[in-house]
Amino acid sequence: MRIAQISPLYEAVPPRLYGGTERVVAHLCDALAELGHDVTLFASAEARTRARLAPVRDQAIRLDPTALKSDLAAHMSQLAEVRRRAHEFDVLHFHTDMVHFPFFEDLAHHTVTTLHGRLDMKDLAGVYRRWRQFPLVSISDDQRKPLPFANWAATVHHGLHADLYRPSAGHRGYLAFLGRISPEKRPDRAIAIATRLGRPLRIAAKVDRADRAYFDDKIEPLLHHPLVAFVGEIGDAGKSGFLGGAEALLFPIDWPEPFGLVMIEAMACGTPVIAYDCGSVREVVEDGLTGFIVRDEDEACAAVARLPTLDRAAIRRRFEERFSGQAMARRYLALYARLARGAAGALGALA
Amino acid sequence: MRIAQISPLYEAVPPRLYGGTERVVAHLCDALAELGHDVTLFASAEARTRARLAPVRDQAIRLDPTALKSDLAAHMSQLAEVRRRAHEFDVLHFHTDMVHFPFFEDLAHHTVTTLHGRLDMKDLAGVYRRWRQFPLVSISDDQRKPLPFANWAATVHHGLHADLYRPSAGHRGYLAFLGRISPEKRPDRAIAIATRLGRPLRIAAKVDRADRAYFDDKIEPLLHHPLVAFVGEIGDAGKSGFLGGAEALLFPIDWPEPFGLVMIEAMACGTPVIAYDCGSVREVVEDGLTGFIVRDEDEACAAVARLPTLDRAAIRRRFEERFSGQAMARRYLALYARLARGAAGALGALA
Repeated sequence: MRIAQISPLYEAVPPRLYGGTERVVAHLCDALAELGHDVTLFASAEARTRARLAPVRDQAIRLDPTALKSDLAAHMSQLAEVRRRAHEFDVLHFHTDMVHFPFFEDLAHHTVTTLHGRLDMKDLAGVYRRWRQFPLVSISDDQRKPLPFANWAATVHHGLHADLYRPSAGHRGYLAFLGRISPEKRPDRAIAIATRLGRPLRIAAKVDRADRAYFDDKIEPLLHHPLVAFVGEIGDAGKSGFLGGAEALLFPIDWPEPFGLVMIEAMACGTPVIAYDCGSVREVVEDGLTGFIVRDEDEACAAVARLPTLDRAAIRRRFEERFSGQAMARRYLALYARLARGAAGALGALA
Repeated sequence: MRIAQISPLYEAVPPRLYGGTERVVAHLCDALAELGHDVTLFASAEARTRARLAPVRDQAIRLDPTALKSDLAAHMSQLAEVRRRAHEFDVLHFHTDMVHFPFFEDLAHHTVTTLHGRLDMKDLAGVYRRWRQFPLVSISDDQRKPLPFANWAATVHHGLHADLYRPSAGHRGYLAFLGRISPEKRPDRAIAIATRLGRPLRIAAKVDRADRAYFDDKIEPLLHHPLVAFVGEIGDAGKSGFLGGAEALLFPIDWPEPFGLVMIEAMACGTPVIAYDCGSVREVVEDGLTGFIVRDEDEACAAVARLPTLDRAAIRRRFEERFSGQAMARRYLALYARLARGAAGALGALA
């Protein structure tokens, strides 16, 4: 198939450090190309991809040191370029939330739109009611809850290239936290669990400008505990070592996580996940196989004690079966084919 | 004429406190209605207007206490509603930068777009090159400088309803600063000028979240000077008293101000403006008549000494002639008529 992938322009594809959407787009492009498809990626110019790159901005917006820039203008120019070339593709796959809807109303039946963010926001319902002709993909079933009426075509869980992470046979005895330092991700819970158990905890995390006060007031004082080590933000190259060395990833979230990519990054390293029962967690973690699903600190501590019952090789196998880049690409290809049949059927009925 | 005015949804129309674009939209709607036109305002529901209100959101986004909301989704729903009703109007007048372009490509010859912000931002040039069919209005000639190639149809200076401000015959001996506390507005310069001259300075200003560190580090320590009084943010009701009581408004800006509404608010009160020579200033202030244009602190101090040579009644008259709401509305009506003739001409040539 001739497939266009349209990425957001905020981070590089894939991101150098933290960043979920552009990472998934990168892995999807590579997997589709590996499966023999003709893939064009509309993204900023520093993208590294096996797809054909159509660069639409000189660099990703958040990496661009220019002080004065416009997110909206950048994406509008990108979408105008996609529109100009739309006839070259069998399917246009958007990862840009909703901003493309007014551009592609007459081509909606040739599009797929994956929603990567939380959907419990005011104003969204109006948009997804008005532009019902666009088939939508959720990244977990749970993500759909605030917009049950929307035009959902499929849930496609994320995947990551299986070669990027080294499965580790053994661990080095610490617990890990990886993500943004933010009230939703609850690094304070991870610290409480580890210190209560007397286990070392390593925290690899980004501190966004928006979360700086939370970090300074709530988290930084906890980092002085002798069992806690804060290693800052790490990139893909460091993740295998960091996650693979951990006895478990702690994922004590307190928000409707739409997917939670770090859970499958851990699984790719053979590392189990102890996750709080929120958002997508029940769809990603298989309790007793790839990790444990818990509801509070007591259950989390009990889960740590049960970690030796899990098989790290089995966790890696489940990652390969469910969450590799090619597994994700095959799910999307099935969807593209189904939508193409539907579009052809609709056109046939008209003819 | 049947005129649609499409406001941004960030602030109330007019704003309760600080906020430029929605204030101008409010005054334009009222003046067009007073001149007998059939005006429909697409805005959030708390708008106070003489136009017919088409409410498209329950409240302005920045006043809405909901934590999770989407600016883009709110504006997309608004624009879809304008699109649905577009056939009811002779002209669609947008104040929403560029977000409406993909919705109205086939109706561009029935639109006017006033650009209210600074235009020296990366990414904008691409958009204004691609959507050249949309006639644009600048709010000063100076504002156009970064985009000289854009489809400029006119410059229309802002206006405000003449009745909103009481012209004051005399002042109460202080200098005034009114605006945001931000590095571009340079409240530090205002403080330096006033304290050097030994004159009282009253500062009525908003501190945005983004400017909090600048306020705390750079400005707050200066506010302890016995000549300086910080009165916080004031609304329209307080402006006549605040500006009318001032011997002059200090406007010591350090950025390409696209218009600078506070300058004409001062003039409406008969209060002269001492403004640094940036952005729109030469188009708004008439040196030696409605104020003084200066380049540095020495010139600003010299200008304060020359304030008694200015006639406050004459300043108010110039405001009424140049910057009343009706003066602005007449300029826009002339533009609507000119564009309508052009559109008819273009259609005639095709027929």
